[in-house]
Amino acid sequence: MTLPIRDPIAALQFSRIRAVSRLGMPMQGVIPLWFGEGDVPTPAFINDAAKKALDDGATFYEANMGHAPLVEALGAYQERLYKRPFPRGRITVTASGMNALIMAMQALVEPGVSVVVVNPVWPNCRETVHIMGGRVIDVELDRDETGFRLDLDKLFDACDATTRAIFINSPGNPTGWMMKSDQQQAVLDFARQRGLWIIADEVYARLVYDRPVAPSFLELAGPDDPVVSVNSFSKAWTMTGWRLGWITHPAALSDTFEKLVEFNISGPASFVQRAGVVAVRDGEPFVAELIARYRVARDLVVQRLGAMRRVRLARPEAAFYAFFAVDGMKDSLAFATDLLTTAKVGLAPGVAFGKGGEGHLRLCFAASLPKLTEALDRLGPALDR
Amino acid sequence: MTLPIRDPIAALQFSRIRAVSRLGMPMQGVIPLWFGEGDVPTPAFINDAAKKALDDGATFYEANMGHAPLVEALGAYQERLYKRPFPRGRITVTASGMNALIMAMQALVEPGVSVVVVNPVWPNCRETVHIMGGRVIDVELDRDETGFRLDLDKLFDACDATTRAIFINSPGNPTGWMMKSDQQQAVLDFARQRGLWIIADEVYARLVYDRPVAPSFLELAGPDDPVVSVNSFSKAWTMTGWRLGWITHPAALSDTFEKLVEFNISGPASFVQRAGVVAVRDGEPFVAELIARYRVARDLVVQRLGAMRRVRLARPEAAFYAFFAVDGMKDSLAFATDLLTTAKVGLAPGVAFGKGGEGHLRLCFAASLPKLTEALDRLGPALDR
Repeated sequence: MTLPIRDPIAALQFSRIRAVSRLGMPMQGVIPLWFGEGDVPTPAFINDAAKKALDDGATFYEANMGHAPLVEALGAYQERLYKRPFPRGRITVTASGMNALIMAMQALVEPGVSVVVVNPVWPNCRETVHIMGGRVIDVELDRDETGFRLDLDKLFDACDATTRAIFINSPGNPTGWMMKSDQQQAVLDFARQRGLWIIADEVYARLVYDRPVAPSFLELAGPDDPVVSVNSFSKAWTMTGWRLGWITHPAALSDTFEKLVEFNISGPASFVQRAGVVAVRDGEPFVAELIARYRVARDLVVQRLGAMRRVRLARPEAAFYAFFAVDGMKDSLAFATDLLTTAKVGLAPGVAFGKGGEGHLRLCFAASLPKLTEALDRLGPALDR
Repeated sequence: MTLPIRDPIAALQFSRIRAVSRLGMPMQGVIPLWFGEGDVPTPAFINDAAKKALDDGATFYEANMGHAPLVEALGAYQERLYKRPFPRGRITVTASGMNALIMAMQALVEPGVSVVVVNPVWPNCRETVHIMGGRVIDVELDRDETGFRLDLDKLFDACDATTRAIFINSPGNPTGWMMKSDQQQAVLDFARQRGLWIIADEVYARLVYDRPVAPSFLELAGPDDPVVSVNSFSKAWTMTGWRLGWITHPAALSDTFEKLVEFNISGPASFVQRAGVVAVRDGEPFVAELIARYRVARDLVVQRLGAMRRVRLARPEAAFYAFFAVDGMKDSLAFATDLLTTAKVGLAPGVAFGKGGEGHLRLCFAASLPKLTEALDRLGPALDR
């Protein structure tokens, strides 16, 4: 007997990051720099807020838009960053950035619809398009020795009659690319004119090293513009395991996202949302400290990796990845797999981030300096010869 | 400028339970019996496990199938209940029963596909079909003075060439109907023969009053049968606000659900899953106590409501709802709305559960006896005249 499931679901790809981590996890002594996750647990002041909420009996269903004080705190937080108001009705709390993204795709994508995706990019966004029966149209970032850049003409030319949305992850995972405000304005103008949506994955908005926050579509878009911004507590507040995020959307989509939350998960855990209030409200010193730490790690990695003979690497402007080209490497998955045994270092293969990522490896530098130093020492024999 | 979203998303229905609760929540002194949620917070031994997990630094990403000890604990739990093994690869941890359900629909439903849904039923399942572009075919339970019953011929006749799955919620919300094992066997035989899936929503499996557990498709189905069972921690362990559930599926779908978890939410919160281990492993005395409490509540409500002149009500065999017909009530939404001001009691309108639910109201009896007594006193003038 067959067990018929949908073709696009049968064709979903396992992340090729996991192809490496699944092999490496059972191995002794591998330094894991494969995931987009640091090695520091959530700070105590956030944990304490969750524990207090549990003690207070916050174990019941929440409103589908989110715990009202969290919606307000996120509105105030974004107003601080972007100098625009984000009233109730513009923000819906989600159970992670991932959860925000699948709901955005549910609202917009169906068979016959395409989403233009700027690459290289973390793999999950494209699979959400496939789950909804849509098609991905790839646009590659160009690169030179100074880093990655987006050719707007290429982006606009890629949009065809089937295109309903443009997906842009900036600051970018894995590239560390940060889109400039004038390019965001041009894309917004184009989207307005063509009736397209912009899905902006802004999860790394705070992980920037030369300014307080990355340029955001939220600085430019009015409350009725076709912009959906996806964000998360995972990176800036080291809350990966909490599954808490939010989506900022036009006021007209408030009811839509309220219903989609109800029918997808009925909201993140109640006490988790209460901890989120404290993270947003009291977390700035922690975020500042985290960025200072990552900046030192970035500089170490760029300096040492960049000096290795086979490596070409520009200094990432944002996020916490070194995404570097390796001369002569044809198969990044095989290479990353080899590194597990030869160097005992776990990296993500560039091919995981789209065809344009082949030839590269991704190293997450959200780790302690001794750990990074040891990893770089171990990578030397493979990369510096 | 228009903001184009998909037609099926624009057409999603707000729950008509929420239509009442939204009005009633700001009102002073309303006794809320509208949601499927008791008024007792999660017990301390489960909260403590979450707090300990936070102290232990369980704040990182989890495996997409779920925290391994939780997958094992759920397998052992179901083996205890259903006398069959549920090895790793048959169970995926989800962020609520709701989350399990949308993922099941993602795997199975697309435009051109229908799901046969046994009604009356909680509204969310049908909307998950709509989100995926599918069509719902309704089959109504029959009812007489002894309760609800399923006509198998009607069910089988409703399945047409577009049908990919049969959705059955037993024990049923709102009806308290409990499907018998011989009917489950007949539906399983039919599904095997026709190559259809059974999506069994078994969230109320433990809330039964005359036996240890409700009959389950999991007692009958082998590891390769087309059965997907959706379950949740919400009801049996009073963990509604935690968003933790699981899905039991054929071994062949293990990779599929692992990927769907990754692309939907990347798993429930890490420390929440650790608390789930403790709930499943140590929770039996609590579950027994809870059922004893609900049994007394059920008997009170059935005796008092059933004696009211306008009410027709059979004793529910399971779950925690009285779903009762009201003589002469044409519009359950209007009636439930009126009850907010006239009786200060919040009930769910029957129409929220499908056309066949019109003429009924749903009262959740997972409340303290004084609260239920007061609510029943207040309902008298409207229902006992």
